[in-house]
Amino acid sequence: MTHDAQLDATFAALANPTRRAILARLATGPATVNDLAKPFEMSLPAISQHIRVLQKAGLIERTQTAQFRPCTLNAQPLQQIADWTEQYRHIWSARFDALDTALSNMKDHDND
Amino acid sequence: MTHDAQLDATFAALANPTRRAILARLATGPATVNDLAKPFEMSLPAISQHIRVLQKAGLIERTQTAQFRPCTLNAQPLQQIADWTEQYRHIWSARFDALDTALSNMKDHDND
Repeated sequence: MTHDAQLDATFAALANPTRRAILARLATGPATVNDLAKPFEMSLPAISQHIRVLQKAGLIERTQTAQFRPCTLNAQPLQQIADWTEQYRHIWSARFDALDTALSNMKDHDND
Repeated sequence: MTHDAQLDATFAALANPTRRAILARLATGPATVNDLAKPFEMSLPAISQHIRVLQKAGLIERTQTAQFRPCTLNAQPLQQIADWTEQYRHIWSARFDALDTALSNMKDHDND
């Protein structure tokens, strides 16, 4: 997968609250599909479909051998989007700095 | 928009290389739709459609009054996804630490 295709797949996989909740659960350790389905009012096929999307994006890995084929989180694609997002940090930081300055000016004005 | 709905919209908007390129261009300053269309071999309606998706996610703001209604980047939704991603940093960091230890052990072994 190219870097762009990987970002497409990761961002698309994350654009769903159930899939984000599945990742949050897997951040605490591996889980079977049945474990993952429990907290959601959703059919097993619906959960399996979400897991497949996460797996295609490389966010979930599944062992082929173990009987219940537990799912494991692979955080590497998340690191890629963290790196991608980082290039915009100076923009939102600048906005905070401007707000800080404005608030500080208002305070100075109050003390006049 | 709820926090979850905002994350859905931001992640979905970012799952496309043209839309990410538009944001990269806007990070250098405001631009009109015509300016944004130039580097892409794409019709103006196709570019406008991408801009609408970015606008709905709050990633682009457009002035209503100016004649050419330039687009401006709003980095706040990007900060939200940076914050969201941050909760997984300890996982990919742990992986790097493990790799570091493994490499260091290999080096020690070479020196035996």
